[in-house]
Amino acid sequence: MSVGNELLIGKIANTNAQWLAKRATALGITVKRVTVMPDNVVETARAIRETLKRKPQFFLTTGGLGPTFDDKTLETIAKALNRKLDVNQEALRMVRMKYQMYASKTGISHVDLTKARVKMATIPEGTMPVNNPVGTAPAVRVDLEGTILFALPGVPREMEAIFEETVAPLLEEASGGAAFYEKSLFVDNIMESVLAPLIDVTMLDNSGVYVKSHPKGKENLPHIEIHLSAMGANAEDAKEKLRRAAAQLSGLILRNKGKVYPKEHRLVQSN
Amino acid sequence: MSVGNELLIGKIANTNAQWLAKRATALGITVKRVTVMPDNVVETARAIRETLKRKPQFFLTTGGLGPTFDDKTLETIAKALNRKLDVNQEALRMVRMKYQMYASKTGISHVDLTKARVKMATIPEGTMPVNNPVGTAPAVRVDLEGTILFALPGVPREMEAIFEETVAPLLEEASGGAAFYEKSLFVDNIMESVLAPLIDVTMLDNSGVYVKSHPKGKENLPHIEIHLSAMGANAEDAKEKLRRAAAQLSGLILRNKGKVYPKEHRLVQSN
Repeated sequence: MSVGNELLIGKIANTNAQWLAKRATALGITVKRVTVMPDNVVETARAIRETLKRKPQFFLTTGGLGPTFDDKTLETIAKALNRKLDVNQEALRMVRMKYQMYASKTGISHVDLTKARVKMATIPEGTMPVNNPVGTAPAVRVDLEGTILFALPGVPREMEAIFEETVAPLLEEASGGAAFYEKSLFVDNIMESVLAPLIDVTMLDNSGVYVKSHPKGKENLPHIEIHLSAMGANAEDAKEKLRRAAAQLSGLILRNKGKVYPKEHRLVQSN
Repeated sequence: MSVGNELLIGKIANTNAQWLAKRATALGITVKRVTVMPDNVVETARAIRETLKRKPQFFLTTGGLGPTFDDKTLETIAKALNRKLDVNQEALRMVRMKYQMYASKTGISHVDLTKARVKMATIPEGTMPVNNPVGTAPAVRVDLEGTILFALPGVPREMEAIFEETVAPLLEEASGGAAFYEKSLFVDNIMESVLAPLIDVTMLDNSGVYVKSHPKGKENLPHIEIHLSAMGANAEDAKEKLRRAAAQLSGLILRNKGKVYPKEHRLVQSN
């Protein structure tokens, strides 16, 4: 769940969700849904409760942990869980240390723990602050029945550093060594509507392999990326599944007068 | 709602949602939520029903209208609404015309309406096909109690063309001339935690203006974008609201020894 009005007015693309989806998938985890919500406590608390009802093994939020008024994600999580917000002593120690480092670096004698700074250490009761290796606001971990929730910051470099240090090892362990591999074929000279039944056959014959065509040209000047992906019990399993499916599909396309390229190439107009 | 496994494995960023959010906002519409779902009929039908329960005035889906097996959005909408899927004669006429144009352009005497092609004209009962000015698969409009749903294709240029031709005029009429304006200030020499209470004051004094700080540097080497936005009854109203809020906030920042730039500039290290 990505929290932030800037996403809902189209100011920025949701690159945090893309980054997390890619990393989680690479670690063998299936991402079931992404939700983008506004900086609005009532609406977003409702969406958090809806999400928890579906009992995902992991639930990550990004955004809304900073010092400003509209950084409301922890207030929102507290509301969704019917918990109080409280200054957490461990979180306060983390925030204080960051400002002491800043003060000593810049030669300032002292940086006050103002209200806005204490806010970053004010987290829902019964939750754990998580070290932020590159920024000030700690992340937060909440262990619920069947779900581990992490509230991560919205600044990409902070979100990514916390993910790698704290979240990724848990995901990897949970996936039990499952591996995700992908492969693209680029195809000319065949319309997507001719390709469709060939993909269907390949998917039916290769269980566990997902094949999707992404038209890049136009229907009548076709240049299509065919993306094959497989989640396997381990890396060898996933790679072998992919190899077999790609070989079968390439054969079918060639027999239908299509041209197949294993890597990207320029679009060539041809009939 | 963006439908497609490629979004949930992080293969691509959700630029369709960003584009639609930006355009809808510019037309005076408030975007309440973005959801990304997999090419899975059961899970996505459930998410469609959840969305319809919230009675949004408009509900747009992107993706899953093409000819392949995994283009399942219309099947999913039919399931969510408990309706049958049926070949729609008007949609079939649209698809046939596209292939006839293709055939005459390329000198092919005839293009068959194969199963995969008829699929693009197979839409839920009681819904309307919508002209696709640049691609083959028609979009679909569904009028429900309190909600108008549009199923748009996932190919960006097709989605955008259909939006502009058919959806945008409806959104503009619904917003009744409301106008959204935005403005950014770039600020140096002030930490986000010092800025936070100044933003709070500005937001309290300027109802209808939303102010959000986006840290671009680090907390201890601050370079911050402050984004102000306002939805007004009309363009003049929104602009005047923004002007007043930006003037107040700039004044507060200058009094706190911050540097304000109305446009982006290079990050200058300073204390």
